[in-house]
Amino acid sequence: MIWPHKDLISIDDLSKSDIENVFDLATSFKEVSTRDIKKIPPLRGKTIVLLFYEASTRTKLSFEIAAKRLSADTVGLSASGSSFEKGETLLDAAKNIMAMAPDCIILRYPYAGAPRLLGQMLPCTVINAGDGFHEHPTQALLDMYSMKEHFGSLKGLNVTIVGDIMHSRVARSNVYGLKKFGAHITLVAPKTLLPTGVEQWGVNISTDLDAVLPKTDVVMMLRIQKERMKQRFFSGEREYSCFYGLNKKRVEKMKKDAIIMHPGPINRGVEINADATESARSIILDQVENGLAIRMALLYLFLGGGKRVD
Amino acid sequence: MIWPHKDLISIDDLSKSDIENVFDLATSFKEVSTRDIKKIPPLRGKTIVLLFYEASTRTKLSFEIAAKRLSADTVGLSASGSSFEKGETLLDAAKNIMAMAPDCIILRYPYAGAPRLLGQMLPCTVINAGDGFHEHPTQALLDMYSMKEHFGSLKGLNVTIVGDIMHSRVARSNVYGLKKFGAHITLVAPKTLLPTGVEQWGVNISTDLDAVLPKTDVVMMLRIQKERMKQRFFSGEREYSCFYGLNKKRVEKMKKDAIIMHPGPINRGVEINADATESARSIILDQVENGLAIRMALLYLFLGGGKRVD
Amino acid sequence: MIWPHKDLISIDDLSKSDIENVFDLATSFKEVSTRDIKKIPPLRGKTIVLLFYEASTRTKLSFEIAAKRLSADTVGLSASGSSFEKGETLLDAAKNIMAMAPDCIILRYPYAGAPRLLGQMLPCTVINAGDGFHEHPTQALLDMYSMKEHFGSLKGLNVTIVGDIMHSRVARSNVYGLKKFGAHITLVAPKTLLPTGVEQWGVNISTDLDAVLPKTDVVMMLRIQKERMKQRFFSGEREYSCFYGLNKKRVEKMKKDAIIMHPGPINRGVEINADATESARSIILDQVENGLAIRMALLYLFLGGGKRVD
Repeated sequence: MIWPHKDLISIDDLSKSDIENVFDLATSFKEVSTRDIKKIPPLRGKTIVLLFYEASTRTKLSFEIAAKRLSADTVGLSASGSSFEKGETLLDAAKNIMAMAPDCIILRYPYAGAPRLLGQMLPCTVINAGDGFHEHPTQALLDMYSMKEHFGSLKGLNVTIVGDIMHSRVARSNVYGLKKFGAHITLVAPKTLLPTGVEQWGVNISTDLDAVLPKTDVVMMLRIQKERMKQRFFSGEREYSCFYGLNKKRVEKMKKDAIIMHPGPINRGVEINADATESARSIILDQVENGLAIRMALLYLFLGGGKRVD
Repeated sequence: MIWPHKDLISIDDLSKSDIENVFDLATSFKEVSTRDIKKIPPLRGKTIVLLFYEASTRTKLSFEIAAKRLSADTVGLSASGSSFEKGETLLDAAKNIMAMAPDCIILRYPYAGAPRLLGQMLPCTVINAGDGFHEHPTQALLDMYSMKEHFGSLKGLNVTIVGDIMHSRVARSNVYGLKKFGAHITLVAPKTLLPTGVEQWGVNISTDLDAVLPKTDVVMMLRIQKERMKQRFFSGEREYSCFYGLNKKRVEKMKKDAIIMHPGPINRGVEINADATESARSIILDQVENGLAIRMALLYLFLGGGKRVD
Repeated sequence: MIWPHKDLISIDDLSKSDIENVFDLATSFKEVSTRDIKKIPPLRGKTIVLLFYEASTRTKLSFEIAAKRLSADTVGLSASGSSFEKGETLLDAAKNIMAMAPDCIILRYPYAGAPRLLGQMLPCTVINAGDGFHEHPTQALLDMYSMKEHFGSLKGLNVTIVGDIMHSRVARSNVYGLKKFGAHITLVAPKTLLPTGVEQWGVNISTDLDAVLPKTDVVMMLRIQKERMKQRFFSGEREYSCFYGLNKKRVEKMKKDAIIMHPGPINRGVEINADATESARSIILDQVENGLAIRMALLYLFLGGGKRVD
């Protein structure tokens, strides 16, 4: 297979058939992580730089383990303890890193647009691991893969995304990606947490979770960052939880085969409680498992891993 | 050899014969670190996660180097710069990590019981690298190995542990472990630094270091954490040092072949001074060297390294 | 080739012919980083500890990637999250690390002399990655290599170093190294930023950048640390920039084939502006690229990489 892309910045960079290729490859890589020796050689001698300007556990760990299982070398850089503290611009830092000939830079950055800029400036592959409120394409791919794994197809699936849509790169990337595959999307949020222009996203919008829930196949709960409360986007955790939290009563309202997703880390008792997290409907940990396989597939494809693993 | 254990949480998880197996294997691994190429292949393709919620140099470095010398891949996570800062529970974080199929999680945690909980919940091996005031089993194993290396046997050895027994996971693990092998233990501390119920530990207790020292084969000095002083456990460094510090005068009182140990990092001038640290009796750096070999042996046994290295 | 050195603390530890050997080897290693598989096996099974007590991006990343491209294992330790926070002395920390049998410790430390002390105490190779205001020999080597790559020879080259000479380990190491090869050095700085005794360095000294610039082949701009301003070494960024900053007007005054260097990270608009940084004269990113090759060559030579790579 010829992979035509240099960078992964937005889920819109990939066509439907590109995404299907990623999914197929991810399925074969899932098997690698069940082996006794969880390591295959396709990216031996490749250098992958993990450049994280924001805290991360899941995403960083997932990329790092994915890289190592493909035999790549990884080096990590975080904002603290580096020259970013000395006031160096992102672009200067990136050009310096580029001078050391990495094959890929995986960037998480607090402001939108930084990965695109880097991808345009640098000859190596740049993968967006989350940029501000903009996009988080590998999260959307793992979410879509997890839905497809469960339902067989994304076409016609009713997906409801609940919570802080305005500040969520996960929501944006999922909306863009799911629409390619013909899913029907409903966003549920208090009006203060909906972004300007959301009417043009081509999705349903509601403020009434209880009305939407019985018709939904997938409910994706977004993390509520506690600092939003201080910024007065909503009046309190308890009120938020009451109107938009996924609890036992709401889980029981869901369709028989509907599933619960969350990109993590979860705020137990705020947007989701234990009844929902630990219910048989929850595929939250499958998302994490699939994330590793998706990232292995992406690194393999973007870094020219050559022929498929057998 | 069949190794029957999944986790190492307490030194009491291991039988006397298990510990002897660890010691034998450690002896053969000590040799690996003297080679020009300090690397052997038994854990190739294994993923080891170092999950450290507390600061560490020695222990973390020791596990990381041990893993790499056995060809395992390591990924490190510390509390800062991760989702732990975002309020995720340990158990949620651990389940997420587990979804990426590591073979082993090495956990240091500020509160007792966390490694046991993780071991019960997760299918992978969990190794306790120190949990609150509870246990630090790999430290006890390296301490016991170092004593045995020096004296040939632990049976009948007079071991004196001096200092902040109450807050010391090192003391607890050593007491449990040494008793299995028939060593005689004396704890020396100001009464404020002895834990409730210490009478039931089956050890001698004293507040008079000078009286105990001439009869002891091994004196193990514990680190005094300076913050304890603020909490009024003792009245000052100088007073502590005067009554419980190991200095030249006290070193001279020791038996001819008695040795000095310390788990590190040392507080020079508080619990131990240069005369003791640099004396020929001190095996403090042997402890560190043996720690690496012990951890190689443990990783090898717990991760099913197969046949012994030749 | 027999490499006669254990440590690299000062550029003066190396003879002219040693440095030429490093340069030759670096040239052959530059090619490795252009390969598809950027990894060669000479340091397999070697353990390299990166011990950084000060923030670093370029230098740490460069050493880490260099080590990995030679197949060595690296472990990193920074001041935060380690026992250094618990008050352990550098020497105690280093002896502990040594007990784990690393082949090389790469040390950055805020005070002069620490790497020399470590090198004297420890049997492993110690490489100085910057010690206080003293030396940064690998930076000087990459700077000299970059000048030689550009001009063919260092002999007779007019090199001007501009800025905070007093606090600059980069300046010191470059002066010592360049003098070995017969370069003519001029230091340009406000008098408050010249160290005591600079008259004995055997270099020209000036406060007038505009007078010196037309006669210079290489202008090396040093980073101005903003905290110096608070310490009253100069009266403000704007004034500094006016008298000592490299801007468009000054770039145009330079000799036709003169080049611009900077050890990074740059302070855009203070000691250097975009016209200089992005001019065709700038070899700032070549310095970084060469830094990687120089560090591969050094690790190879110091860790006994055996025969040359083919």
